[in-house]
Amino acid sequence: MSTQGLLIVLSGPSGAGKGTVCKALLKECPQIQYSISATTREPRTGEKEGKSYFFTEKKQFESKIESNQFLEWAKVYDNYYGTPKDFVIKNLKKGKDVILEIDVNGAKQVLKNFPDGTFIFLLPPSLEELSNRINKRGTDSQEVIKKRLASAEGEISEMKNYNYAVLNDQVENAVEKIKAIIIAEKCKIDKIDVIKEDFKNDLPID
Amino acid sequence: MSTQGLLIVLSGPSGAGKGTVCKALLKECPQIQYSISATTREPRTGEKEGKSYFFTEKKQFESKIESNQFLEWAKVYDNYYGTPKDFVIKNLKKGKDVILEIDVNGAKQVLKNFPDGTFIFLLPPSLEELSNRINKRGTDSQEVIKKRLASAEGEISEMKNYNYAVLNDQVENAVEKIKAIIIAEKCKIDKIDVIKEDFKNDLPID
Repeated sequence: MSTQGLLIVLSGPSGAGKGTVCKALLKECPQIQYSISATTREPRTGEKEGKSYFFTEKKQFESKIESNQFLEWAKVYDNYYGTPKDFVIKNLKKGKDVILEIDVNGAKQVLKNFPDGTFIFLLPPSLEELSNRINKRGTDSQEVIKKRLASAEGEISEMKNYNYAVLNDQVENAVEKIKAIIIAEKCKIDKIDVIKEDFKNDLPID
Repeated sequence: MSTQGLLIVLSGPSGAGKGTVCKALLKECPQIQYSISATTREPRTGEKEGKSYFFTEKKQFESKIESNQFLEWAKVYDNYYGTPKDFVIKNLKKGKDVILEIDVNGAKQVLKNFPDGTFIFLLPPSLEELSNRINKRGTDSQEVIKKRLASAEGEISEMKNYNYAVLNDQVENAVEKIKAIIIAEKCKIDKIDVIKEDFKNDLPID
């Protein structure tokens, strides 16, 4: 019905399961385009340019920040990461839905740059479960885990700026809800001018 | 997540297929409560009080109109029809979703009395198809058909006051979309205070 695709922002605290849910969603809905990030870090084995990331020189990245070419960006330790506007816009214009799987700070920037997006906050079943998930990763030190849990509290307070919240009690439940949100968003009155045009063409009736 | 059920208003022009879609939806989602209307007309064979309608005396109906006990009501020829508020509210409070399948004028009244409802406008694929459907019924005179088509034009212009529009190209497509809308509505940020409360109870984290 609507000619332009949806920009779907899937965010939430670290440990909510954004990556797992996003992967499962894309498996079920291969028509959704995953937003490929740009980064200044070195490619790892097996990573492909334009598939895993857009690998970008530091100077080029900084000049793109200057000229407002990212929907959001961040510096993590020594490396930049960001969502290139042009890739997202190009796909939306083609009518493709584009999903961004990003942290809460990134989503905040996208909200400013693209308020018409569909902002979905993924929630872990409880902070206890969040703690278990972060612990299970085993990659983080106790200090990092504590920091992550503390920041999760702050991040959950950001939820009010989103359109939807989806509880990630089970990955398949979360995916079903996100699929429903995408369908519903496309039925929203403000998204369906095309239909109204169709009807106008049908008139006058007799 | 949310404790109160959704009030779903399924409306649209006569001939859009509201009855068929509503019936198919209720078959798939037996947990949704169909809103039973009140009427002053005589029960027909097989119709049961409190199942088909709440059969009501004319004077009683008029006194209920006076005391604002209907979400919407109309007089059709000599009989009144209306949606009793108490039945709807009672079910919503129980956490049940309630669906009203009503015409555009009725929906307009509900919008005033219950703006928090989810208003879905069902569209026939085109006015041509609408004309075919009304003709196929075979119950209406040519004059009535002409009137219905003319009023459909006016009714479609009401669409802007709804939350969603669903194209009834195929009953199963329309049902899928309405089911998705119901799921999505329950994920809306303003509907999920309960979750936020859950998280508050989890705090402080450490």
